[in-house]
Amino acid sequence: MPDSEDLTLRPSDDAVGVDIGGTKIAAGRVDGQGVVHEQVQRPTPPRTAPPRDVEDAIVAAVGELRVDSRAPVGVGAAGFVNAAGRVVRFAPHVSWREEPLADRLEARLGRPVHLENDANAAAWAEYRFGAAQDEPRVLMVTVGTGIGGGLVYQGRLERGAQGMAGEFGHMVAVPSGRPCECGNHGCWEQYASGAAVRWEARARLQRRSGPVSAWVRAGMGDPAAVTGERVSLLAQTGDPLAGEVFAAVGTWLGRGVADLVAALDPGVVVVGGGVAQAGELLLEPARAALGSTLSGRGYRECPALVAGAVGPGAGLVGAADLARWAG
Amino acid sequence: MPDSEDLTLRPSDDAVGVDIGGTKIAAGRVDGQGVVHEQVQRPTPPRTAPPRDVEDAIVAAVGELRVDSRAPVGVGAAGFVNAAGRVVRFAPHVSWREEPLADRLEARLGRPVHLENDANAAAWAEYRFGAAQDEPRVLMVTVGTGIGGGLVYQGRLERGAQGMAGEFGHMVAVPSGRPCECGNHGCWEQYASGAAVRWEARARLQRRSGPVSAWVRAGMGDPAAVTGERVSLLAQTGDPLAGEVFAAVGTWLGRGVADLVAALDPGVVVVGGGVAQAGELLLEPARAALGSTLSGRGYRECPALVAGAVGPGAGLVGAADLARWAG
Repeated sequence: MPDSEDLTLRPSDDAVGVDIGGTKIAAGRVDGQGVVHEQVQRPTPPRTAPPRDVEDAIVAAVGELRVDSRAPVGVGAAGFVNAAGRVVRFAPHVSWREEPLADRLEARLGRPVHLENDANAAAWAEYRFGAAQDEPRVLMVTVGTGIGGGLVYQGRLERGAQGMAGEFGHMVAVPSGRPCECGNHGCWEQYASGAAVRWEARARLQRRSGPVSAWVRAGMGDPAAVTGERVSLLAQTGDPLAGEVFAAVGTWLGRGVADLVAALDPGVVVVGGGVAQAGELLLEPARAALGSTLSGRGYRECPALVAGAVGPGAGLVGAADLARWAG
Repeated sequence: MPDSEDLTLRPSDDAVGVDIGGTKIAAGRVDGQGVVHEQVQRPTPPRTAPPRDVEDAIVAAVGELRVDSRAPVGVGAAGFVNAAGRVVRFAPHVSWREEPLADRLEARLGRPVHLENDANAAAWAEYRFGAAQDEPRVLMVTVGTGIGGGLVYQGRLERGAQGMAGEFGHMVAVPSGRPCECGNHGCWEQYASGAAVRWEARARLQRRSGPVSAWVRAGMGDPAAVTGERVSLLAQTGDPLAGEVFAAVGTWLGRGVADLVAALDPGVVVVGGGVAQAGELLLEPARAALGSTLSGRGYRECPALVAGAVGPGAGLVGAADLARWAG
């Protein structure tokens, strides 16, 4: 039975949000206040699967939702989405290359479909419903396996000329630094992401002469077993080595944010993504680095650096809301 | 006698632009097509002079122009100007601190005055009349003693939450790198500016075992006598060492631009400022570095990187035009 909020909803308020992640595809019914009323999931087909399989999974997930069949659909995807919100130019988890996904899904679903880069969608969700409400200039940094981001400027989502604005993770933090999958060296996301948490943790373990008992107990006796989530859990218990790892990663995060603040002067900086679940372990050192390195700090206010408030579903919520505006 | 264009001008088309530089204050009468019809200059009072002296020089320069006394005045100044275009928070060449310059000048000039950061004004001029006409997303980088910049996004000048957007020069290019006046180390402007031209030239001269005859003839026998302008003139003659200097500085310029393009995805990148007068000596290596390091270069077009077309008066022209729009 629908809950009480359901009964007061006008159908026109509803939109469908879809988030295409590396492991799962989530679809949800989202109301005009950004509340998710129902959500279903499907596994993401493997990267080697034909693009059609991903479409099938999206169509099936959307079909399961109890929602007005005219409700617009917003799809958030990791990767490059063109500025018109119609074509996925490249996606890291799916075999899409110049894929006209919006047209294909519209033909199959019989309603408007809008595509968006997932971090752009998350930025929009934080602006509309989350940590950046009423702030017309929002810099969103999403920290997961890599770093993504989005910009809301003067109350509009800034997609860039080709739909690729916000690829902050591949700004170079260290010339000739750690190698990145993108082919360059020293990209920021190699220093301030889930991958960086693993890198910093393994480097510290390898410097030790013997096993570290708390880490062995946490399943990380072998550096190969180190994961960002395990390090985060350990850091939450007060483990000093795990705390050091987050301090290092958070400091790199704050330094990069200082560069972006110098360039863009946002009213607020919102940090989201999986690694941001570590909360103040990550944000406190980031805030300290931002405050101590921001250019012109004697003559300006340092913007607040806050955790996202919409949560891990921000991409889905933002995509749904953008579909409502685009429709 | 006024030229023929003067005779066809409607007074309402005219605005006054003022550019406050380190050595001179220029004021000009600018028409609605961005053409400067008359220009006067005054020396900039020394940094130790009271703020009032600078106001006096501006008022005197504006008063010399033969222009409708109601024409709005736009003032471009190096430094931090607040987002409303009213207050200079800090200026490197003048003793202004939180100076309500727009109000003071309005009281003395009896007409609307709009303040703008000089690089923002130059970006606006290139968008309206120069190298970036009809391109709604413009990244402008001004390369002088340091690096400034401006952003026109979706056809609007993006000043940021506090009026400080576009301070690209203090993004960190090299952690723990060359010291910068701002108090940080490794700022981009230490690697890709007039200061960087001098640094690269001196470093190369000091590596040589003896004097370099072409450099001695160009007045740079002593590394202390090296100036950006002299190196530029020498490079124009085909001097290989001077060419190396510009190749190094241009490469750093292109790398930093690649970071900004990843973050902002502009439709065009315009390079202005004094050092950009070196033209292709600087831009060709910058373009090469941008093309070879831009993230996702296999899945996107690389934006054009071009020289500004408005010239050294871009700040004055842009400030005048912004005053027309603000008024």
